[in-house]
Amino acid sequence: MSAPLRIAIAGLGTVGAGVVDVLAGNGDLIAQRAGRPVQVVAVSARHRGTDRGVSLDDFDWYDDAAEMAAKADCDAVVELIGGSEGIARRVVDAAVAAGRHVVTANKALMAEHGTELARTAEAADVALAYEAAVAGGIPIIKTLREGLAGNRIERVYGILNGTCNYILTEMRDTGADFDDVLSDAQKLGFAEADPSFDVDGIDAAHKLAILASLAFGVEVGFADVHVEGIRHISPLDLQFAEELGYGIKLLGIASQENGEVEQRVHPCMVPKDAPINHVEGVFNAVVAEGDHVDTVIHVGRGAGAGPTASAVVADLIDVARGSRAPVFGVAASELSPLAARPMARHRGAYYVRLMVVDRPGVFADIAAILRDHEVSMESVLQRSRDPGLPVPVVMTMHETEEQAMVRALDAFATLDPVVEPPRMVRIEAL
Amino acid sequence: MSAPLRIAIAGLGTVGAGVVDVLAGNGDLIAQRAGRPVQVVAVSARHRGTDRGVSLDDFDWYDDAAEMAAKADCDAVVELIGGSEGIARRVVDAAVAAGRHVVTANKALMAEHGTELARTAEAADVALAYEAAVAGGIPIIKTLREGLAGNRIERVYGILNGTCNYILTEMRDTGADFDDVLSDAQKLGFAEADPSFDVDGIDAAHKLAILASLAFGVEVGFADVHVEGIRHISPLDLQFAEELGYGIKLLGIASQENGEVEQRVHPCMVPKDAPINHVEGVFNAVVAEGDHVDTVIHVGRGAGAGPTASAVVADLIDVARGSRAPVFGVAASELSPLAARPMARHRGAYYVRLMVVDRPGVFADIAAILRDHEVSMESVLQRSRDPGLPVPVVMTMHETEEQAMVRALDAFATLDPVVEPPRMVRIEAL
Repeated sequence: MSAPLRIAIAGLGTVGAGVVDVLAGNGDLIAQRAGRPVQVVAVSARHRGTDRGVSLDDFDWYDDAAEMAAKADCDAVVELIGGSEGIARRVVDAAVAAGRHVVTANKALMAEHGTELARTAEAADVALAYEAAVAGGIPIIKTLREGLAGNRIERVYGILNGTCNYILTEMRDTGADFDDVLSDAQKLGFAEADPSFDVDGIDAAHKLAILASLAFGVEVGFADVHVEGIRHISPLDLQFAEELGYGIKLLGIASQENGEVEQRVHPCMVPKDAPINHVEGVFNAVVAEGDHVDTVIHVGRGAGAGPTASAVVADLIDVARGSRAPVFGVAASELSPLAARPMARHRGAYYVRLMVVDRPGVFADIAAILRDHEVSMESVLQRSRDPGLPVPVVMTMHETEEQAMVRALDAFATLDPVVEPPRMVRIEAL
Repeated sequence: MSAPLRIAIAGLGTVGAGVVDVLAGNGDLIAQRAGRPVQVVAVSARHRGTDRGVSLDDFDWYDDAAEMAAKADCDAVVELIGGSEGIARRVVDAAVAAGRHVVTANKALMAEHGTELARTAEAADVALAYEAAVAGGIPIIKTLREGLAGNRIERVYGILNGTCNYILTEMRDTGADFDDVLSDAQKLGFAEADPSFDVDGIDAAHKLAILASLAFGVEVGFADVHVEGIRHISPLDLQFAEELGYGIKLLGIASQENGEVEQRVHPCMVPKDAPINHVEGVFNAVVAEGDHVDTVIHVGRGAGAGPTASAVVADLIDVARGSRAPVFGVAASELSPLAARPMARHRGAYYVRLMVVDRPGVFADIAAILRDHEVSMESVLQRSRDPGLPVPVVMTMHETEEQAMVRALDAFATLDPVVEPPRMVRIEAL
């Protein structure tokens, strides 16, 4: 057996403690698979005294994680601090500068600085591995970078945020509204105290930008992702979706056509019998569509100590084995600039709900707006009548261009009998 | 860009032509991802003149594939002939002996001689890659060998034969019986003229033996797989399954407990809402359960030119990149001998259907047999009464040991009013 792979871990939160736990519990198995032991030699975290349920006695302690990355006597640095700037960034830079391999779970860092970091790592001839950054335990980075590498990937999409999927599943099953379910999710530990990264779609957008780079060989373009969260989804819309034969999921979708890449994160109505609609609660799913393999679907846990540590340790085993593929599937110098397709030019079907005070002539006004913006209606539902009070009018539109739909929505909002901002959910044929 | 990876392809059926097609169509992309072109230099097949829809003009032709493997000026040999013995085996042996890497789609060869071939390949320091041997386009070999390598795998199971899944899906949806659906499937090209490898479970058993070796680090033990096919599944059983809240799938299931490995392929009743029950038609699915990652589900096309070629080309890109992991996840010399758990000691729940001529005292006899064999009944259904004619009596049993169940079935068969051999389908809690 060869010399151990000596690693230093920066950040000992849930995931960091999980990695220590996996390496201790499955150490023999990991050594057998990697051909050499993977041995923690140093750790760093904000507070030394915290009880993390794992022993740190055998490891050198550093108060300063960047100092550890530069100076610890190790082969690889595991960055589990998080955040796109500050200390996490300094740890990665220091590790690469010192010629050490880097394994990270940091989606924000990879989404916002991935291209640059890939270039630096390749120049230093070290690995930069980030399996844990996307979809937790599902090895989707490896799958896109290696397992499907013979294919031109046409589209990659998925449920990339377990918190949102949990909230939407609960809202559908209980009829409760967003705020109540969020508050319960926070009590159960399925949502953060500051839920914005999750429920506003930013976390999913980070992950989508990484997947798009890998899938299409383009520079990572987080800034070009169109992002909407789930705060505006109401129980009423979930109920109408059900009636129309759809479920509502927050999806990240990246596709490539004519050299342009479209990246979008928003709630979607998906057919009830689509495989992705069966992915419930905190589970994640990623679907890849390639020109030869057709469709491959992956479902697993997207967060939590065990699944995330599983991904980190898989990266460490690759490093220990000396297996290496380019950071984003092709050499960083060969990543194409991302030609982003603006959301205004997205084409798709739409669900629209207006709250309308029912009086003669309303439908004529709505129809005139659709005609003027060349939006073609597929169906309309008005279930209740309550003269003088607002009732929901639900429409679905045939495939149309986003900018036409947006202008029509703006025009609906100016109609006198329309008493709430129009609600729109995109319909995806998956 | 480095020198090309020069490959020789043995076998130009659907998959071989598919590989030539993928390498031609996505050549630039593959070269970019692999860091070097993957270039076909030689081919061999039974008949030179066959129109395969791809041009072979640029390749050296060999009538004898084993001679090509030994002599062609190449770095890797792709074996797509099939079969566990004969020419396929000679091609692989010749390639390894000549120090060339091997990529194969041959499940029979890997299932029956995998351990020995892994030892030979490792001794020769060449790759032996077989992603295409299991579940077609789903990169499950890479996922188990690398992506989930931090986990102790507890169970791996799946729908490993698309022909059987197609037949069972059609039988359920149309109510037609096995022979009619098989005959239609043969006309549609979803089943072979000699369907036995598929419908008798042998193909799935080959794949399961490979998965078990990878998952548990044991020598490949095809001979120890308990194999049953789907010929005995009737529309009546599919209908009762539906009524009881189950679907019927042919699954391969491998699990490890107390150092013993259980490997079995047989029809299973699975809960209607289990994710695997939503995998329909020719699709395959593989589910891996690890101690940290929990459950990861993979669904994709298990056969066909495109998906299988996708897997072969992924292996070639790994070889071109110089990425290599041990053939079965750990060094061949460290694979443990397989301690097989005999099926007689399997524990599970059971569905049993008897065709019984309804007369007084029958139930007392059935109940006595269950008591004598210590099998505990969970439910019984007798929907129709037709004095003097046989009617189905359907029972489900609580978890019990297989050998007790088998003895009880043998005893049922001896009862005078039981006019057909008892039918049994195992119930899986997935």
